Amino acid sequence: MEFISGVRQKDDLTIKAVLNGGYEGSSVKMRGAVHTIRDMGEVAFVILRKAEGLVQCVYEEGALAFPLKDLKEESAVEVVGRVVTEERAPFGFELHLEQLEVLSEPAEILPMAVNKYKLNTSLEAKLALRPVSLRNVTERAKFKIQEGIVRGFRDFLMSQGFTEVHTPKIVARGAEGGSNVFKLDYFNKKAELGQSPQFYKQTMVGVYDRVFEVAPVFRAEKHNTTRHLNEYVSLDFEMGYIDSFEDVMAMETGFLQYTMDLLAREYKKELEMLEVKLPDVSRIPSVRFDKAKELVAEKYNRKIRNPFDLEPEEELLIGRYFQEEYGSDFVFVTHYPSKKRPFYAMDDPADARFTLSFDLLFRGLEVTTGGQRIHDYREILGKMEKRGMDPADIESYLMIFKYGMPPHGGLGIGLERLTMRLLDEQNVREASLFPRDVTRLEP
Amino acid sequence: MEFISGVRQKDDLTIKAVLNGGYEGSSVKMRGAVHTIRDMGEVAFVILRKAEGLVQCVYEEGALAFPLKDLKEESAVEVVGRVVTEERAPFGFELHLEQLEVLSEPAEILPMAVNKYKLNTSLEAKLALRPVSLRNVTERAKFKIQEGIVRGFRDFLMSQGFTEVHTPKIVARGAEGGSNVFKLDYFNKKAELGQSPQFYKQTMVGVYDRVFEVAPVFRAEKHNTTRHLNEYVSLDFEMGYIDSFEDVMAMETGFLQYTMDLLAREYKKELEMLEVKLPDVSRIPSVRFDKAKELVAEKYNRKIRNPFDLEPEEELLIGRYFQEEYGSDFVFVTHYPSKKRPFYAMDDPADARFTLSFDLLFRGLEVTTGGQRIHDYREILGKMEKRGMDPADIESYLMIFKYGMPPHGGLGIGLERLTMRLLDEQNVREASLFPRDVTRLEP
Repeated sequence: MEFISGVRQKDDLTIKAVLNGGYEGSSVKMRGAVHTIRDMGEVAFVILRKAEGLVQCVYEEGALAFPLKDLKEESAVEVVGRVVTEERAPFGFELHLEQLEVLSEPAEILPMAVNKYKLNTSLEAKLALRPVSLRNVTERAKFKIQEGIVRGFRDFLMSQGFTEVHTPKIVARGAEGGSNVFKLDYFNKKAELGQSPQFYKQTMVGVYDRVFEVAPVFRAEKHNTTRHLNEYVSLDFEMGYIDSFEDVMAMETGFLQYTMDLLAREYKKELEMLEVKLPDVSRIPSVRFDKAKELVAEKYNRKIRNPFDLEPEEELLIGRYFQEEYGSDFVFVTHYPSKKRPFYAMDDPADARFTLSFDLLFRGLEVTTGGQRIHDYREILGKMEKRGMDPADIESYLMIFKYGMPPHGGLGIGLERLTMRLLDEQNVREASLFPRDVTRLEP
Repeated sequence: MEFISGVRQKDDLTIKAVLNGGYEGSSVKMRGAVHTIRDMGEVAFVILRKAEGLVQCVYEEGALAFPLKDLKEESAVEVVGRVVTEERAPFGFELHLEQLEVLSEPAEILPMAVNKYKLNTSLEAKLALRPVSLRNVTERAKFKIQEGIVRGFRDFLMSQGFTEVHTPKIVARGAEGGSNVFKLDYFNKKAELGQSPQFYKQTMVGVYDRVFEVAPVFRAEKHNTTRHLNEYVSLDFEMGYIDSFEDVMAMETGFLQYTMDLLAREYKKELEMLEVKLPDVSRIPSVRFDKAKELVAEKYNRKIRNPFDLEPEEELLIGRYFQEEYGSDFVFVTHYPSKKRPFYAMDDPADARFTLSFDLLFRGLEVTTGGQRIHDYREILGKMEKRGMDPADIESYLMIFKYGMPPHGGLGIGLERLTMRLLDEQNVREASLFPRDVTRLEP
């Protein structure tokens, strides 16, 4: 009988292993994709693309049996070469090739110069060829940073006593209501795709006090803008036993602080490659919705058209105001009007036209919506009645209040929007591996 | 201007803080839900439920102003009490109450004795009341262990150079094909819910060499069995530059080893509560599909009806065989028939009726399907042609092979099935917070 007893040690090296030292002058084996070939006549540079970065290999005529003309870009290869210190090479070393073996070959040459440092092409062209344009090193660096954001979210919340949960995406009814839901037939029953894990994460506060989920959410919004996706990754958390919605804002600030530190520490290479300057999140200003409107109306000489709504342009100006006045890229806008918030938001006891809720703006773009939720059964029934909603429609959600819930609140962060702003991208599609919008269902 | 500067320090304590010591005889503040009240006449025990576990509070008549008769189970409370060592209490201490404040109250008493140690009730009843039955301490312990499995998967793969990705769930076409797809209208285009991130994770191997994803997948299977869910969490990884599909099996074994260690270390309380004995995964036997059929036919005196198919009963017997003969709860079954595998599976060059693929059985239940994939453009076109498939249907996927892919393979693990077997549950619904099956769309 054969047995599998764990990860197999291979004799090919990672870049990290070479950098750990001891290989100078030795022959080592490496595997990777042929990112580019630069033929200089007597020598050629064969640049190997690995997950960790690029490795410069020097091909000298006569040093190995493999004919350079037979080598194709985007082939997967295994090479053996002598490690030589070379300051001008990425990571400060190069391999002087002694052997080269092709593991697999492309059928055609790439339709786009993926091996350029930056892809100087339109977003449309990049997205059409997304499966290969992502092989570009600056393109892929963006999603490495995105990985870091998600890691930061999970690791920080775990350190704060949160439990990770997985809740269903096919649901009987969306949490937000309205028309922007994708509908589907579920064994002859009407079903929807979840717009948010709202009901489920609140439910789980009754179980674990503090929970989080990282999962896709779906919004059938028909407008094609630079900041909307029809499917995106939502970073959600919900916490019980709060004293006020400010506890939720404080937890989010803690997440941002932790994550910026993590990125600075472990994603330095990608940050430098993309010339990202991490924002200062040591303190984030917080301003009431109505006050914020006044401040920008005054400073930028605007009229307040609707005191209960915030236009995208106003969001931008609020972002600009807090950048100019306080040097902050982030600002919490609190006490959104009750009309603009779902029924489960807790109204401000001091003035029920407003809620104990907030948005977080990052350079003028809403990246988070959160707040305190109603926890009292009679209060939520009363609010539903006022809005003409039927409790029978969401009985299994209302069950949690009937049988007791602690005071609680939470938030949802749009991963792609947060990534987009951090990278100073102008279109949210730049921050989604395979974006879904009104016209885009592939790749 | 107000500023939010990070997580707020609160004066209520966690159980961990008390256990860290120094509080004996002091008054401390704690928050939690009133799990149960046991009135013994002169004293009463008020058991507080926190995420970390239960805290025994002693209520003595006259020691505090709050009347016991006004206290309701499932109320959220804040208590102040003196810490007293008490071996018989959970965690070895109790609080002698001095103050009690109700933060919120239920409207009705629970319809089920959630505060019993184990819920002695039917699965149906538990699921109908899922939002509150999960508050039972043994019920919630199951999903804490599930959290540990997911943590183990991610942490281990990160340590092995994998990158985490997020790929779309609304897709133009499912990876597995067939009839078990949920269809939806996507802005007047036909769309489906992803049965697996297969195409996308392969695509991302061309970008990051090694990737993983933890996300929901959707299968519109019409049969209602104890081991099928219509939506489940899939733990997927895909790795490039493999020498054979055995590298994938080796990586999975490494994941299991890492995760069992993590569970033993950090989920001890839950494992004890559920009386889970962790399986030995130091080595996992591996057997060919055809050989496995022969072995069980011989030992258990069965006829091989169809040499190219494995019945659920045969899976159980294979599990039993390797338990009896080798003391292993796990067994890799390799070289599945080509007819039973999707078109992208690599056929065995030695015998094209079989594939370089595997399933992992855990106590006789398939918990993983994986294998080596075709990486050559012409080869995959050839296999599609043989199966009567039209390349134009999945052009953006085929693009990755056209422009070059390394040899690669991967797998998908059903999180709920793995959890179910680990916990020795008989129904996969026990291992899903809010299961989706043919008749169940709520809660």
